[in-house]
Amino acid sequence: MLKGFNYPLTPKGKSTLNPPPPWYYSADFLSIEFWADPAAVAAVLPPGLDFNRSGNGHANALFYDWQFSGSNEEYLDPARYQYREFFILVDALFEGKAVAYCPYIFVDNDAAIARGWSQGYPKRLGQVFQTRYYAATGKAGPALAPGSKFAGSVTASGHRLAEALVTLKDPVKDMCVLKQAPIVNLLHTPRLAADKQDKPADHELVENVPHDVKIEQAWIGEGSLSLPVCHGEEISDLAPVRCGKGIRASLAYIVDDLKTLKDLR
Amino acid sequence: MLKGFNYPLTPKGKSTLNPPPPWYYSADFLSIEFWADPAAVAAVLPPGLDFNRSGNGHANALFYDWQFSGSNEEYLDPARYQYREFFILVDALFEGKAVAYCPYIFVDNDAAIARGWSQGYPKRLGQVFQTRYYAATGKAGPALAPGSKFAGSVTASGHRLAEALVTLKDPVKDMCVLKQAPIVNLLHTPRLAADKQDKPADHELVENVPHDVKIEQAWIGEGSLSLPVCHGEEISDLAPVRCGKGIRASLAYIVDDLKTLKDLR
Amino acid sequence: MLKGFNYPLTPKGKSTLNPPPPWYYSADFLSIEFWADPAAVAAVLPPGLDFNRSGNGHANALFYDWQFSGSNEEYLDPARYQYREFFILVDALFEGKAVAYCPYIFVDNDAAIARGWSQGYPKRLGQVFQTRYYAATGKAGPALAPGSKFAGSVTASGHRLAEALVTLKDPVKDMCVLKQAPIVNLLHTPRLAADKQDKPADHELVENVPHDVKIEQAWIGEGSLSLPVCHGEEISDLAPVRCGKGIRASLAYIVDDLKTLKDLR
Amino acid sequence: MLKGFNYPLTPKGKSTLNPPPPWYYSADFLSIEFWADPAAVAAVLPPGLDFNRSGNGHANALFYDWQFSGSNEEYLDPARYQYREFFILVDALFEGKAVAYCPYIFVDNDAAIARGWSQGYPKRLGQVFQTRYYAATGKAGPALAPGSKFAGSVTASGHRLAEALVTLKDPVKDMCVLKQAPIVNLLHTPRLAADKQDKPADHELVENVPHDVKIEQAWIGEGSLSLPVCHGEEISDLAPVRCGKGIRASLAYIVDDLKTLKDLR
Repeated sequence: MLKGFNYPLTPKGKSTLNPPPPWYYSADFLSIEFWADPAAVAAVLPPGLDFNRSGNGHANALFYDWQFSGSNEEYLDPARYQYREFFILVDALFEGKAVAYCPYIFVDNDAAIARGWSQGYPKRLGQVFQTRYYAATGKAGPALAPGSKFAGSVTASGHRLAEALVTLKDPVKDMCVLKQAPIVNLLHTPRLAADKQDKPADHELVENVPHDVKIEQAWIGEGSLSLPVCHGEEISDLAPVRCGKGIRASLAYIVDDLKTLKDLR
Repeated sequence: MLKGFNYPLTPKGKSTLNPPPPWYYSADFLSIEFWADPAAVAAVLPPGLDFNRSGNGHANALFYDWQFSGSNEEYLDPARYQYREFFILVDALFEGKAVAYCPYIFVDNDAAIARGWSQGYPKRLGQVFQTRYYAATGKAGPALAPGSKFAGSVTASGHRLAEALVTLKDPVKDMCVLKQAPIVNLLHTPRLAADKQDKPADHELVENVPHDVKIEQAWIGEGSLSLPVCHGEEISDLAPVRCGKGIRASLAYIVDDLKTLKDLR
Repeated sequence: MLKGFNYPLTPKGKSTLNPPPPWYYSADFLSIEFWADPAAVAAVLPPGLDFNRSGNGHANALFYDWQFSGSNEEYLDPARYQYREFFILVDALFEGKAVAYCPYIFVDNDAAIARGWSQGYPKRLGQVFQTRYYAATGKAGPALAPGSKFAGSVTASGHRLAEALVTLKDPVKDMCVLKQAPIVNLLHTPRLAADKQDKPADHELVENVPHDVKIEQAWIGEGSLSLPVCHGEEISDLAPVRCGKGIRASLAYIVDDLKTLKDLR
Repeated sequence: MLKGFNYPLTPKGKSTLNPPPPWYYSADFLSIEFWADPAAVAAVLPPGLDFNRSGNGHANALFYDWQFSGSNEEYLDPARYQYREFFILVDALFEGKAVAYCPYIFVDNDAAIARGWSQGYPKRLGQVFQTRYYAATGKAGPALAPGSKFAGSVTASGHRLAEALVTLKDPVKDMCVLKQAPIVNLLHTPRLAADKQDKPADHELVENVPHDVKIEQAWIGEGSLSLPVCHGEEISDLAPVRCGKGIRASLAYIVDDLKTLKDLR
């Protein structure tokens, strides 16, 4: 019997891109709130999700410096499993309930692509960076303190797709400001067979159900974001009309399930 | 309506990893024939494929320097679509017919990963290199001539997984030596939903059906290959017991279909 | 005794970035002729070089897909020595003689950086790509024929710095069109010692003296180039006012010397 | 006048690899103490440095996740300036005084290569990783607590050159255990001119003089290290005979000077 969660499936299951769930994550992240053109937000939503008029184009851009592990100390092989990520979440409604939809996401690691595609995250490869916090601070390492600045950037296929800045004001006291609507993705697996190219193997709305979410060292302040126009890319259609709050924090959670909301085929 | 063959699906279809088929390819390649431990070859085969006793562990290792295009001059965006690839094909039988099965494959580009997974190629990211041929030859650029040497190497997750050498002897006159049994892959799409982790969305044997295959500048000689033992990897289980012929050539073909041989679920 | 041409110097001389000269090169290249703002060209020239009024801002942008070797078959270790390069040459005068000066150059390999700095090429890391020619042509691989198109791009520090296109018209019959004025660089080695930061270890004009230059498969046609404005970069100051001819060819040469023209200290 | 500390020198000084000193650094690091074959340690030392018999082959391997800045908030451009580093320091004597010499060092960033070469660090490009600490801990993110494990790895030119593990035992109370002998490097700038290839532009012993050193969150425990044998590399000659303590901490310092100890020409 061949073993492995993702490709490749092999006799011992060691070569697979990912071990089977549960999947464990820790990260530092930046989050920048913004408002895009409402028509552009409505245009990226898949069937089954409705534009959330009350949000008026509301969205978030997120930069994550992730460490991943399965149950076999994969965090001790950072060359294979550590990665960086950038994604956008836009406000939407599923059957009247507020959700967040991910139209664009970039990572710098193949295991992360594979896990993402299993969850409906439409990942591409990118070079993602964010300013880091170190306990030994200085001119090269901002403190967790009012006025400190943390920047993020993402480049894919050779084009700078996003740049962001978070300026800290206060530690987060009311954890409500960190609350995130459930993330609903479009899980899509195309078929290459000539007579099935319009009949994907998967085409459904799915809800991510992470658990044991922990947030530490959360600071809030101002965010700014730009999404420059690039040849061959559409992400700039979501360019901010205005930006809102910025957050910098650490997060951990576990993923071992995915909830199907609606088969769209 | 959202557009795109692979993730992401977007309003204009520009951000997608790949345009819809037909997919066009040109490449230079190295091919090294070898024989692995027959038990190791039998062990990598999925259900539905049988070990080919007459091959006695026969396999090929291949290095490709690819250029890809869809119908919109994607070959003019090499930062997004040019890539390098290494893979292994082992002899097998499907219902008594000789086929080749791909247990391991590495590329350095995300669009190539996405196309590969749509065809059952179990691609991971790797750093793949081969010595190039240039019309302006010299000590840095081997001629297409007897005794010329071309090397290949692949590294993934920080480990050197394969090294190869082809030494040219003669131009290929009888194109039969380049004949390749049909490639049959295991198309596999896992499901993360907790109650479906043993019920993949796809799990079937598929046959690749490239067409309009052109081969040019083919030379044949001797091949050598090593597959070193690496922590966390199994490819070395296929390490050569002995090596055979080596080939260096250019190839072009078109992919626009995939044939399902057998659903394994 | 420690051995090695570049860092690191070690007991056996195997770890060094580069073997000692002679250095052998083969490549495919694209060349795009253009005219920049004359004032911008004058501004990038170091002391000792004069603006060439007759050129009126004339320059060339070049993309090279290189293979390097020393005397020990280094071309068989392409993971260590194969690389891609983009650079700009602007017209200048040294003591009244026409020369070409390189203000910007990007490569994707550290051995190439080290060799470059030894020759006064001000190399930085970048991701450089050009459309390749393969003997097996098709929609993904342009033929060497009238109307065929070859593109190039370069990205550094996450920003797209240059994009180019060469459209072939005719094979080059008169090799004079390929003639290149001698390349004169500013060889500069800074000193970190607090009292010597204004006294570089090297600061001189040097002339590159490659020999045994071979050019094959040369085609000429039209060139186009863009140098977009990027935060933190100045290369866009040389953005083309207009573009001229484009060339696509293969080249080989040998480097084993460097001529000092003038010490600027 | 052209501006810039390192290449390229340009009219505005924006394109240069590095701003002028002072240079600011913050990092997290792993340090693994080990003893190599004393003859191998003696063999890597340059003229002017003597083998430290009392150390008996004592050395340290270090993994750094660095953030760099000049005086213009370069830490807000992490795509250009953030980097990872691995290096080895061996015990030595300079005129009878205990010093540490760096025979091998790898980074993943060109600005870091340029600064390093200005200080005599013999840097090559590599892919360097270490397990990170996050405030939000869990199975993917080890706590700063007894028994926690942090791993490091480095790959260069496609070969895995080093793997390490630090297992924490206790917070460091006595800062003396973190004391580092002064780092003395061989500053070496080769000359390509045919008649000067044996007359380097620089060839001297230099002492690094960082200041305002801060160390935070220091934990001590056990270290382990392997330096596998690789084709074309000599670092494995320093493979540990035995390993000693392991450290995991954060560090910040400033570099703005370099002290010449002895010209070796």
